[in-house]
Amino acid sequence: MSLYAELAQRLREHIELGFYKAGDRLPSVRQLAKEHGVSISTIQEAYRLLEMDCLIEARPKSGYFVPEAKQQSGVPNISRPPQRPLDVSQWEEVLNLLSNRTENAVCQLQHAMPEMREATLKPLIKSLQELTKQRPYDGMTYGDIRGDYSLREQLVRLAAASGCSLHPDDIIVTSGCQEALSVCLRAVAKSGDIIAVESPSFYGSMQAIKAAELKAMEIPTHPTEGMSLEALRMALDQWPIKAILVTPTVNNPMGYIMPEPRKRALYELAREYDVAIIEDDIYGDLAYEFPRPKSVKSFDEDGRVLLCSSVSKTLAPGFRVGWIAPGRYRDTVTHIKYVSSSMCPILPQIAVANFIRHGGYDKHLRRMRALYQNGRDRLLADIRQYFPVDTLISYPQGGFVLWVELGHQYDAVKLAQVAASHGIYVASGQMFSATGKYRHCMRLNFNDRTAEIRRNSIRLLGQLLQSDAALALAS
Amino acid sequence: MSLYAELAQRLREHIELGFYKAGDRLPSVRQLAKEHGVSISTIQEAYRLLEMDCLIEARPKSGYFVPEAKQQSGVPNISRPPQRPLDVSQWEEVLNLLSNRTENAVCQLQHAMPEMREATLKPLIKSLQELTKQRPYDGMTYGDIRGDYSLREQLVRLAAASGCSLHPDDIIVTSGCQEALSVCLRAVAKSGDIIAVESPSFYGSMQAIKAAELKAMEIPTHPTEGMSLEALRMALDQWPIKAILVTPTVNNPMGYIMPEPRKRALYELAREYDVAIIEDDIYGDLAYEFPRPKSVKSFDEDGRVLLCSSVSKTLAPGFRVGWIAPGRYRDTVTHIKYVSSSMCPILPQIAVANFIRHGGYDKHLRRMRALYQNGRDRLLADIRQYFPVDTLISYPQGGFVLWVELGHQYDAVKLAQVAASHGIYVASGQMFSATGKYRHCMRLNFNDRTAEIRRNSIRLLGQLLQSDAALALAS
Repeated sequence: MSLYAELAQRLREHIELGFYKAGDRLPSVRQLAKEHGVSISTIQEAYRLLEMDCLIEARPKSGYFVPEAKQQSGVPNISRPPQRPLDVSQWEEVLNLLSNRTENAVCQLQHAMPEMREATLKPLIKSLQELTKQRPYDGMTYGDIRGDYSLREQLVRLAAASGCSLHPDDIIVTSGCQEALSVCLRAVAKSGDIIAVESPSFYGSMQAIKAAELKAMEIPTHPTEGMSLEALRMALDQWPIKAILVTPTVNNPMGYIMPEPRKRALYELAREYDVAIIEDDIYGDLAYEFPRPKSVKSFDEDGRVLLCSSVSKTLAPGFRVGWIAPGRYRDTVTHIKYVSSSMCPILPQIAVANFIRHGGYDKHLRRMRALYQNGRDRLLADIRQYFPVDTLISYPQGGFVLWVELGHQYDAVKLAQVAASHGIYVASGQMFSATGKYRHCMRLNFNDRTAEIRRNSIRLLGQLLQSDAALALAS
Repeated sequence: MSLYAELAQRLREHIELGFYKAGDRLPSVRQLAKEHGVSISTIQEAYRLLEMDCLIEARPKSGYFVPEAKQQSGVPNISRPPQRPLDVSQWEEVLNLLSNRTENAVCQLQHAMPEMREATLKPLIKSLQELTKQRPYDGMTYGDIRGDYSLREQLVRLAAASGCSLHPDDIIVTSGCQEALSVCLRAVAKSGDIIAVESPSFYGSMQAIKAAELKAMEIPTHPTEGMSLEALRMALDQWPIKAILVTPTVNNPMGYIMPEPRKRALYELAREYDVAIIEDDIYGDLAYEFPRPKSVKSFDEDGRVLLCSSVSKTLAPGFRVGWIAPGRYRDTVTHIKYVSSSMCPILPQIAVANFIRHGGYDKHLRRMRALYQNGRDRLLADIRQYFPVDTLISYPQGGFVLWVELGHQYDAVKLAQVAASHGIYVASGQMFSATGKYRHCMRLNFNDRTAEIRRNSIRLLGQLLQSDAALALAS
């Protein structure tokens, strides 16, 4: 990263953390140049970047200021879901999202799909090609029902990076994280039981709750700190909750990382009320900070945390390599995994194991973290520039999706429909609630490097929002 | 097939169908030669083959007879399971079977694993290798949640061979038949519901019943005609059964094919009582007769039959390519399939689609039908020769497993343990019942061509049965 980009990044953080507030004047170019021992043009270049991102504005003869009028950098407020367990609906909306016909696609912002064209992924592709060529019969037979041992050994290594001390026998390989979540829900709860979830929450786990005949209890969730533990305690007091399902490290859809003390407190609370925790860690290794944050599982002393993950976001979803560290639920989880889809294909497991063992995984993630962080900053800037001034945006600490909260007068479902006719696809917010809340919200990805196309698409979305009366709920 | 082998085959069928009964004298060599217009040595050769199989015995100066003392060719009687819905147990036994450590394996008769080394399978392997090389990114992305369209088009063709008229949109691809069965059970029944099943029945579907919190109602099942429709009607009268789960075309573990009129009657009965039918057709294309028998689904007029299948037995299990034709349950099945494991990998689907389209599938199956039928005859002969005289054996009409019913004094569970210490693995019968019946039974495969090794293993099993007092329950 060049000197001026680094400086811009530091200033950006200061602004976003509130060190400089709306209306504040920033240090003069001369003053800052002296302070950092760099040239005046370097500072000018850094300020220019921030200006492009609408984070600062130049006032003639006065200097640079944090804009007063537009507080677009605000994050959403804590959510206020209904305070009772409810059946999950919204399946048709999810199916519609999954079935999008995208022949006309200009820009696909709707899926949580990783960028897969980076050179750092090539050794994995090559390895799978070689295995398919050299060991075809291993690819055709039934393997270990718990997953290939060589992979489980490497997953132990990954888990160690999030503070977990596991043995290969503590891990069960699944067909992606979706199967992991589904199996865990069925392992800890029976028909009619209540599961506490974040709000908003990933639609895949919500639909798994529905399919298992469970009820979802949405807990108010803070856009930077995660599930409210105070609200969770009240819910635990009031309802016979069976398990807590959370995505605390790089949340989907919000992107926050629950602070470590709160993760520990979450575990203690689960212990106090004797409920299980299903921890979806699928984005955990994509936290921009390194080393990555600890998982809730790392605090688990009595096996009540079932950690679920996969390589679908870190590497590629098509490998269908996911896993569970099921703690004390191992026997039940093994049973349900077996009936769910029997064993998983062997060769992708071996390829991923080799990729981790030989350092390819770490190298790839270093690359992706930088790429995604850059994508986040660009998308944030685009939204701030083009969306209505009252738009609130989550500030992801990892991964490649963020959450946009429009003014309550907007209908993101209608927006999504109109946008689709222009070839621009977004995931409207109601799918991330059990009951169709968040119609004024949407999840957008910043997963690839086609920033110019995305910028134009965000501009068009902004124009639609600010012009098309059909999008306003009030109309 | 040579002339004498053909003749032997015809005589074998006559004996097995009871045309010649125990104690009957067969036509003299001279008489038969004249009748068929062949040489005496041809008849002698045919009789020699039957003698080797213990189907006939030569009595000096008297001619050839069907043996009196040993009625080993008898098939088991109709089963008599408990006449009430029950929770499924036996998971530990199944897990033990799945987890067999087989480093010392001499002969693995325990798994329903197809032979995969035939040259006719090579084009499929090659196709997958090429796809992996040429279209790696298709292998890494999310595909259609219902499965690749090109595969569903070909599956429509396969379904037509069993009398079904389907459209690609009537099919949902799954991760093997296990996921298909599991999804269908969850689609048609809710926690506590009762499912009618054959007895004995495939342990994988029984365990899926358990995991879905359902109860199994085992229906008396005839070893050549399948589930007793009379008993089924009584059960339907008496219990609120939600669905009937059957494997009517090449049953696992018995190998029978339910006669077509009975399949139609089964459908009519389901319609009369308004219950669903889940039809496991995974072995259907391996029926020795050609064209293959019709499925129950082929009689379905109102979409109440959910057909489940996969290529795990016809081609290879490692591809994890299965499917459901869910009839009227399509929406629910799509939902549960999505939460179960999201989409399936694309490249194996395309490889299988190409294999079917280009005729490789049909060619491979022609080869496998002949191979397995030969394997059946050899295994039957071996068991008749070496096992106790009161042993009953099913007479498979397709596929590569059969069911052995020992005298009630034997314990196949103990036999399996002792045999395993000799490197010989069998699937003991209690796993094929909800409640651990059939301890005196076992399922054996005849899936490969290592007939000599298998013969020796059957001999050893026979010796163990006839010598080791520890195997007798009475002891």
